[in-house]
Amino acid sequence: MNILVVNPNSTESMTRKIIETANRVASAGVSVHGATAKGAPASIEGHFDEAMSVPALLSCVRAAEDEGVDGIVVACFDDPGIGACREIATGPVLGICEAAVKAASMLATSFTVVTTLPRSVPVIERLIHGYGLSHQCRRVRSAEIPVLALEEPGSNAREKILEEIQRAIEEDRCEAVVLGCAGMADLTAWLSEETGIPVIDGVSVATRMVEALVGCGLKTSKINAYARPNVK
Amino acid sequence: MNILVVNPNSTESMTRKIIETANRVASAGVSVHGATAKGAPASIEGHFDEAMSVPALLSCVRAAEDEGVDGIVVACFDDPGIGACREIATGPVLGICEAAVKAASMLATSFTVVTTLPRSVPVIERLIHGYGLSHQCRRVRSAEIPVLALEEPGSNAREKILEEIQRAIEEDRCEAVVLGCAGMADLTAWLSEETGIPVIDGVSVATRMVEALVGCGLKTSKINAYARPNVK
Amino acid sequence: MNILVVNPNSTESMTRKIIETANRVASAGVSVHGATAKGAPASIEGHFDEAMSVPALLSCVRAAEDEGVDGIVVACFDDPGIGACREIATGPVLGICEAAVKAASMLATSFTVVTTLPRSVPVIERLIHGYGLSHQCRRVRSAEIPVLALEEPGSNAREKILEEIQRAIEEDRCEAVVLGCAGMADLTAWLSEETGIPVIDGVSVATRMVEALVGCGLKTSKINAYARPNVK
Amino acid sequence: MNILVVNPNSTESMTRKIIETANRVASAGVSVHGATAKGAPASIEGHFDEAMSVPALLSCVRAAEDEGVDGIVVACFDDPGIGACREIATGPVLGICEAAVKAASMLATSFTVVTTLPRSVPVIERLIHGYGLSHQCRRVRSAEIPVLALEEPGSNAREKILEEIQRAIEEDRCEAVVLGCAGMADLTAWLSEETGIPVIDGVSVATRMVEALVGCGLKTSKINAYARPNVK
Amino acid sequence: MNILVVNPNSTESMTRKIIETANRVASAGVSVHGATAKGAPASIEGHFDEAMSVPALLSCVRAAEDEGVDGIVVACFDDPGIGACREIATGPVLGICEAAVKAASMLATSFTVVTTLPRSVPVIERLIHGYGLSHQCRRVRSAEIPVLALEEPGSNAREKILEEIQRAIEEDRCEAVVLGCAGMADLTAWLSEETGIPVIDGVSVATRMVEALVGCGLKTSKINAYARPNVK
Amino acid sequence: MNILVVNPNSTESMTRKIIETANRVASAGVSVHGATAKGAPASIEGHFDEAMSVPALLSCVRAAEDEGVDGIVVACFDDPGIGACREIATGPVLGICEAAVKAASMLATSFTVVTTLPRSVPVIERLIHGYGLSHQCRRVRSAEIPVLALEEPGSNAREKILEEIQRAIEEDRCEAVVLGCAGMADLTAWLSEETGIPVIDGVSVATRMVEALVGCGLKTSKINAYARPNVK
Repeated sequence: MNILVVNPNSTESMTRKIIETANRVASAGVSVHGATAKGAPASIEGHFDEAMSVPALLSCVRAAEDEGVDGIVVACFDDPGIGACREIATGPVLGICEAAVKAASMLATSFTVVTTLPRSVPVIERLIHGYGLSHQCRRVRSAEIPVLALEEPGSNAREKILEEIQRAIEEDRCEAVVLGCAGMADLTAWLSEETGIPVIDGVSVATRMVEALVGCGLKTSKINAYARPNVK
Repeated sequence: MNILVVNPNSTESMTRKIIETANRVASAGVSVHGATAKGAPASIEGHFDEAMSVPALLSCVRAAEDEGVDGIVVACFDDPGIGACREIATGPVLGICEAAVKAASMLATSFTVVTTLPRSVPVIERLIHGYGLSHQCRRVRSAEIPVLALEEPGSNAREKILEEIQRAIEEDRCEAVVLGCAGMADLTAWLSEETGIPVIDGVSVATRMVEALVGCGLKTSKINAYARPNVK
Repeated sequence: MNILVVNPNSTESMTRKIIETANRVASAGVSVHGATAKGAPASIEGHFDEAMSVPALLSCVRAAEDEGVDGIVVACFDDPGIGACREIATGPVLGICEAAVKAASMLATSFTVVTTLPRSVPVIERLIHGYGLSHQCRRVRSAEIPVLALEEPGSNAREKILEEIQRAIEEDRCEAVVLGCAGMADLTAWLSEETGIPVIDGVSVATRMVEALVGCGLKTSKINAYARPNVK
Repeated sequence: MNILVVNPNSTESMTRKIIETANRVASAGVSVHGATAKGAPASIEGHFDEAMSVPALLSCVRAAEDEGVDGIVVACFDDPGIGACREIATGPVLGICEAAVKAASMLATSFTVVTTLPRSVPVIERLIHGYGLSHQCRRVRSAEIPVLALEEPGSNAREKILEEIQRAIEEDRCEAVVLGCAGMADLTAWLSEETGIPVIDGVSVATRMVEALVGCGLKTSKINAYARPNVK
Repeated sequence: MNILVVNPNSTESMTRKIIETANRVASAGVSVHGATAKGAPASIEGHFDEAMSVPALLSCVRAAEDEGVDGIVVACFDDPGIGACREIATGPVLGICEAAVKAASMLATSFTVVTTLPRSVPVIERLIHGYGLSHQCRRVRSAEIPVLALEEPGSNAREKILEEIQRAIEEDRCEAVVLGCAGMADLTAWLSEETGIPVIDGVSVATRMVEALVGCGLKTSKINAYARPNVK
Repeated sequence: MNILVVNPNSTESMTRKIIETANRVASAGVSVHGATAKGAPASIEGHFDEAMSVPALLSCVRAAEDEGVDGIVVACFDDPGIGACREIATGPVLGICEAAVKAASMLATSFTVVTTLPRSVPVIERLIHGYGLSHQCRRVRSAEIPVLALEEPGSNAREKILEEIQRAIEEDRCEAVVLGCAGMADLTAWLSEETGIPVIDGVSVATRMVEALVGCGLKTSKINAYARPNVK
């Protein structure tokens, strides 16, 4: 089974981290292919960055489709271009926000999302409203760190995230935490150990859930919304 | 007051129709500027077309911002790239779906949307869910006509739309109808006359609503979600 | 174009302020007609006041209809008697709560309402639930001032409102603020300047939105819910 | 225990039917007091009639409060003026729509409402949305009969209602039916027998539910929304 | 009229308190029959306890049905096994959570629930979501006391509950309070007096509401969801 | 990795079919353990059957926990006892309804569920409401066949299911179909081929999704709702 994990921003170090994360959880026999959305913004912080990343993301998907990929993970927590990807893909396509919050809803009755910047909070709230999980989402919080700070070795990003999770447990009475950025994937195990509750990283979960759907022989529906694009 | 009305697809005849429609309703003293998203797909029929149109749409918005535009209408019923436009715009930005369904909710307790192709139905349903108006939307129907058929003089598009509206009144018991495509704008008056109920075209309504917001001195909020894009 | 702006309470000083506000934003060629609901309570603070104001409000609407008014604004944030007004009106009818929260939802992903008394908070929450915008409304707050204190020159009402807005920005992380009383209309510009976020006054917005609907040739639907009252 | 059952329209024959219905179900020791909203419209068919009935309804409530009534039923399915009544009442106040749909939700997982005229359908849908029971309400149907036809001995109203209920069972797969007009109260037993499913009349249910609340020592909350009207 | 009030846990002292409460509010002519779910857990604190209590609860219901009971109250705030009870019952069946929150929604625009342990909070939130009353429920709070502490004479349970209610009034701005455990029934009058707002105990309210439904001749629907169990 | 797949009814032929299905999709290295809820009803058709099956189901879970199982699938579409299982389990627990509808929501914008008997329709609708996916579920349909007919070689169950799916595509305009009974698992591939849309079987999907969660190192949250049962 071949799974494409695309990083929709153009920061290669992030792609490497994402591929490592996906490989760590992938089943035996599953081949993880990474891709970086060349020409996309260096990080996706808001609607504009997201919109500008999608054409490059779609090129990655097209290329992988040509090579017969079985399923696709879009590794940015804003779930950019998912509908468009689903139109051009044959197999399942999952964004890491959708995968992570749906996983959280299976492990706990409530969860809080901890993301990077305040400007991403309403974006994520809207996604969760669309996924129908607002009633299980206690709150979307930001740790007030830019996405790329997660890539800087000396930054205090991990401490700030841990503190925000501890506040979430205390103030939101949440039972699980979802990490709201692909760049946090490498902190998952440590954060879970420190806090004692499920800490969910979308990259791992999306990789394994796409595997799950492919393993059941399921593909993206090709009638109506996700039918292949009309030829003009 | 200067208002930009962008056609996010690349079909110039559609841009002309949209500008005419906007000019027909614009108040004295309001200058309507049209723009076509060059390089975008010829019509927007689904998520892929939508995603591919947004960068060109954003260029139009950037250019208009540089010239000091006061407000912006995005003239495609899928409301593409609205969040991204709002980040780079100073004044209000409105998609024609949002404008039309919110107008409908002010004139009637329920409405039905009549759009072009079946594949657009779930896209529009999702938008309306996001706008919080699912409880007033009886149904989203398609008249089963491709977007560009609306531009062909000899097509029977207008009859099919009229028939679909008549079915909506009968079967959905809706009190108003929203036209689910910018390309239907020129049929509004005729359809309203034939059916006796409010028939709402998003291009006109969005133009006048942007005018309304600008006229009240209102601009897009610049904290959090719609703050200007971060410089990388 | 003739627009009626009715004050559903009987305080003439409030009517004057409302008319001034509406005139300040009205387009050239639009004639604003004010009316006071004679015999109604001096202010509308709760359901009882609201109910007692409606027959007088409906008389104002009837009179304006007889003179061929094109659209109507009901200038009380509890949106009293809107359905009844719509039944007897030909053109569009808008309450200032509906207009303001729908405008807010176009300029920001979230907003907080600041109203006068605590007793009005649940009334407004219920309206917003009905308009489908609960998911964008962070909170309805009261500045703990009686409606008529807004008319007293020496009161500290404006300071209390400013402070409440500042708390809303801090605690609710809202991106815009809606003023929850027609009597606050004259403070809008000042509050917006002080806070740097969109501050939305329903009187202005409703006036321009009714203009917008009339300008598009739209009228209140006359089938089902808003059909003319049955003759007994 | 003294319970007021107010008919908010001015048709005395309807008041008599309502009192009879309430008396039929009232517990021993409960005294049912009837009242007619003098000066109100002869029937309540839509928002305008409703608004015009409320001041007269409130007078009936005031008078009963002065005589120490324990609880109040407002016997019109549009639940007119309930909030206002609750402000001036000491004991519980129930509208027959709220009582009936909440009762239905206790006896079945889904119900359909059968009302008189099409124009009342959206009014009732909105009430049910406000009561939070849209997910249990299959549909609101009208039997296409004017309210006062229910008072005419020779009309075929009862047959039309029966037929509409039979269609509801067949098409809506509902498990219970709520009668959407106080004037249908006398048909309940017959309709239930004919159809074999629970047929719920709001007048009976509201009377007994008010009894229930009074019997538990419960009164309307007097903080915030239902506090007594402010003295001006 | 015969009403069964079942305690789904096996603690007899709790059954006695529940029967006393039900008897205190029951109308003249109503005979309250108590039952204890023998073999069930000593208290119901979470999903496991709840599941383990249901078969014993169903035996109590079966036995009462055989003796011709008219209506049934399930006296645990988690509303265990209600659907199953409704399938085997002829008359109405009410859980005390459903009864209490629906009663609260008739007396106030908002309420807070105060329950025993934190682990029950999400259980109750989910119930309220299912009953459609999330928009009126300000918050579900726990007083951090185990269920059986309510049975210990010397515990400070009542003080902790009072304090939690006072916090709810202050912080949640709720207008009524629902007691989230059958074991709190005896504190209702005292708590209501201390706080001045409606304090609602589910046991009393459910008893009188079942009475109300029976008194109107209403029974559980026997088509679809609550039809008698299929014989295997 | 060890995964328990429990059949909560007592029909062994169904357990065998379920185990086969789970084994067909399980990854290399995953060991599927089947269990039958001994003493439970022969099939689960409604709330009563469901309630009576849960204690036996919980025994199976307890036994598997003692042997160190990693994750659990509850293979009945009514998702019986999931909360209780989660309290006593260490790893993830998934019901097949939750797994299937969440999978469907990843592959299509809308789906219809096809179940066995009409009485199960409202049960499933309620589950989907709780999972937050009502807005993507077009309809829950029944093919009007008893659960055990699926086990009879000569029955025309598969044809009836195919016909119901074809009606769903035509009338509901759904983009995917979810099979609403564990007993339909063996028909999935055939139905998908016949209809050309994704047909989703909960047993396969739940097995692979539990694998996915376990593979990511995720376990059921042990604070609040799913904490281990309190010792009495």
